[in-house]
Amino acid sequence: MSARTITVVGGGPVGALLAILLARHGYQVGLYESRPDSRTTDIYQGRSINIALSDRGWTSLEKIGISDEARKQAIPMYHRAVHAVDGELTSLPYGVGDDAIWSVSRSGINEHLLDVADSEPNITTYFEHRLADIDFETATAMFRRPKGDEIVVNADYAFGADGASSKVRRLAHNLPRFSYSQTYMPQSYIELNIPANEDGSHKLETNALHIWPRKHFMLIALPNTDGTFTCTLFLNHEGRPSFESLREREDVEAFFEAYFPDAMDYLERPVDVFMEKTASPLFLVQVFPWSFNRKVALIGDAAHAIVPFYGQGMNCGFEDCAELHALIDHYDHDWDQIFPAYENARKPNGDAIAELSKRNFVEMSDLSGDSMFQLRKMIEAKFSQRFPALWTPLYSMVTFSPEVPYSEALRVGDEQNTIMEKIMAIPGIEEDWDEQYVMDRLQELAEATFGEGQ
Amino acid sequence: MSARTITVVGGGPVGALLAILLARHGYQVGLYESRPDSRTTDIYQGRSINIALSDRGWTSLEKIGISDEARKQAIPMYHRAVHAVDGELTSLPYGVGDDAIWSVSRSGINEHLLDVADSEPNITTYFEHRLADIDFETATAMFRRPKGDEIVVNADYAFGADGASSKVRRLAHNLPRFSYSQTYMPQSYIELNIPANEDGSHKLETNALHIWPRKHFMLIALPNTDGTFTCTLFLNHEGRPSFESLREREDVEAFFEAYFPDAMDYLERPVDVFMEKTASPLFLVQVFPWSFNRKVALIGDAAHAIVPFYGQGMNCGFEDCAELHALIDHYDHDWDQIFPAYENARKPNGDAIAELSKRNFVEMSDLSGDSMFQLRKMIEAKFSQRFPALWTPLYSMVTFSPEVPYSEALRVGDEQNTIMEKIMAIPGIEEDWDEQYVMDRLQELAEATFGEGQ
Repeated sequence: MSARTITVVGGGPVGALLAILLARHGYQVGLYESRPDSRTTDIYQGRSINIALSDRGWTSLEKIGISDEARKQAIPMYHRAVHAVDGELTSLPYGVGDDAIWSVSRSGINEHLLDVADSEPNITTYFEHRLADIDFETATAMFRRPKGDEIVVNADYAFGADGASSKVRRLAHNLPRFSYSQTYMPQSYIELNIPANEDGSHKLETNALHIWPRKHFMLIALPNTDGTFTCTLFLNHEGRPSFESLREREDVEAFFEAYFPDAMDYLERPVDVFMEKTASPLFLVQVFPWSFNRKVALIGDAAHAIVPFYGQGMNCGFEDCAELHALIDHYDHDWDQIFPAYENARKPNGDAIAELSKRNFVEMSDLSGDSMFQLRKMIEAKFSQRFPALWTPLYSMVTFSPEVPYSEALRVGDEQNTIMEKIMAIPGIEEDWDEQYVMDRLQELAEATFGEGQ
Repeated sequence: MSARTITVVGGGPVGALLAILLARHGYQVGLYESRPDSRTTDIYQGRSINIALSDRGWTSLEKIGISDEARKQAIPMYHRAVHAVDGELTSLPYGVGDDAIWSVSRSGINEHLLDVADSEPNITTYFEHRLADIDFETATAMFRRPKGDEIVVNADYAFGADGASSKVRRLAHNLPRFSYSQTYMPQSYIELNIPANEDGSHKLETNALHIWPRKHFMLIALPNTDGTFTCTLFLNHEGRPSFESLREREDVEAFFEAYFPDAMDYLERPVDVFMEKTASPLFLVQVFPWSFNRKVALIGDAAHAIVPFYGQGMNCGFEDCAELHALIDHYDHDWDQIFPAYENARKPNGDAIAELSKRNFVEMSDLSGDSMFQLRKMIEAKFSQRFPALWTPLYSMVTFSPEVPYSEALRVGDEQNTIMEKIMAIPGIEEDWDEQYVMDRLQELAEATFGEGQ
């Protein structure tokens, strides 16, 4: 087989990883990124955006044969550090033992993968090449360069790995029978910062995801390796309080002091930043198909932009790559089979994590609120420890069980939900929750639903 | 109050009705339609497209004060005439007594409403004016005319009543926080024709909706006043059999003769028409918001394009108009209140009828198939006749109960579904369905769910 050529549009983490796996399968890959190279240009202007990686992400990287270099730069977060309004701190572990989600610098992992890509002889990377058009019949792409000139790139196949606002996907809108959905969440967000101590250490506990859950809004903070925390304030776009209602400086001050008094000791000019920044919207994108004419396909956020409340966005994109990696072998490079198998395998999982990520806003933002909700979590945790084969909590299935597809996690989670609603409806459950009969009833219901095991 | 001006984009049935109600509330209305006037130009080229109108449509027209002229041109269909493959005919009534859905000529009702609009002094109608752009801040619209010149129309408010492929809606895609979904159904469709007898009478029973349900596809026929039937073949776009798989003339012939042998005696050149026509896709569009800056709003299919399987598309659009009609009075022409009240009232109903219309393909196409499904309908019908306050079948709620919002019908229907699943799970239900204990159990479950009445 003569080496076939593939164009990858988008040099973010998913595009870079995709280029690597394709190159390692013998393809000649052109990797095209619209922005300058962050390794040689300070395009992030000192901003350190971080994201969560967890077992699905690590497992996918391993499957593709990426070293654990990235993990060395990641900070494990073993629990949620929940900050109540009065400053009281509660620790809620993510899983058991050393189960953790990992705070990763987006630019750090991206640059690591670009370095790996550079070391692959089959990959050529082009920065400052912005996609202008793509022919979905031939996979021929046209890119515009900074000086305005355009180049035409022919290839056997092309991938749109160009993120939540994917140009490849927007161009696909003109194709027949393309189903498309873009849904805005009621919340928008701004990023804030907690600087490091003078000695470079963290001002708050390092190995935790800090949350200030306030039911209809919340502040979170993820640690960076330089001692800072990147914080995100999620708040309704309209209503009260909201980004729309908080326009006057004194109202913003009052808002922060009323709801995040302890964080005010650490946050860097939060009121100034709030006044200066325009809040970014949160939206989900779902489309089908993900591939066109057995020539062009979407991957990562381009195929399934989700909201960040489950910390699964990049994990899901990396899983897309691992699936392709396996399918190229399985179908021995027959792309007429790979493309449909890829989209059929991944679409239900993309839809499931979209749904889960939407729902999890409530879960996160109400963490210290509803006492019945906390009680339910305790009962579930207790039962799960006693009957691990019968019950893995939904959060653990999604985050720590890469062998369980997202779609399966969603399905089982809904069945668990039905069961737990029955348990929580037991009269006197608030007093009796630790009694043996509650465990017995739960065991009976779980066995009736799941048989011997999930 | 000096007369305010409103631009209505789209002169179909919903646009024309909207123009009338706005004019009757004292507004100066410009009604702009991209096509020529069908009353003076033969734009339909002899095609008689018909649609179903039912109680919601008639009630809405009455509320707005439209005479029953349209009803005189409509043909009541009291039941489904189900054609089995062997030619056997089964009659399934739509409701009780003289409950009927009505076959209406789309051009007929449109022309009637345009005639009414012409008689309103406050309406000026412009044909062959195609919307080119609209300013969502000012409601200023730009229209292109046949010779290529453009006119700019200022108004206080504007409505997009421009149908399933609404240009107003597509222009709204560029607005911030506009949520949008376009979903293709697996089925596409072509229209066929059954000509009249030489004496102008119908070749099949007049007062019925004829269905040839074949599970994964179906043919339907609706009567026209000129003795013809307009038929629609709904068939998968791909797979077997499908519009894609049936490409050879002999395969198409074999398909029709295998599945619709009795219809072959009536259909006009079905194989030729199948070979000549390109199948049209079926898609649903859901968006939010429906109004922008208290200046511009969407209505009818422009706001909620659905599939035709519940016969509710135009009914829903007319209900939008009736709602606006009531809100203009209720809020005394305060559009800052009317627009949000309109979209909040109608959006849940648009979503509900979208869901119901999708689901109803299965219901229609499997009418003569699943015997358990038929049994379930019989049990429901029997129970409903005995306890009308406790149980109105979903189809009747949607079609014959305009006082029940679509969203309420969907919710109650889902609860009925849960109950009927329990009834159908009774061991031996196939033999026992007519026994008293089945009615008793159903009564017990219905009363537990709905109390004394729905």
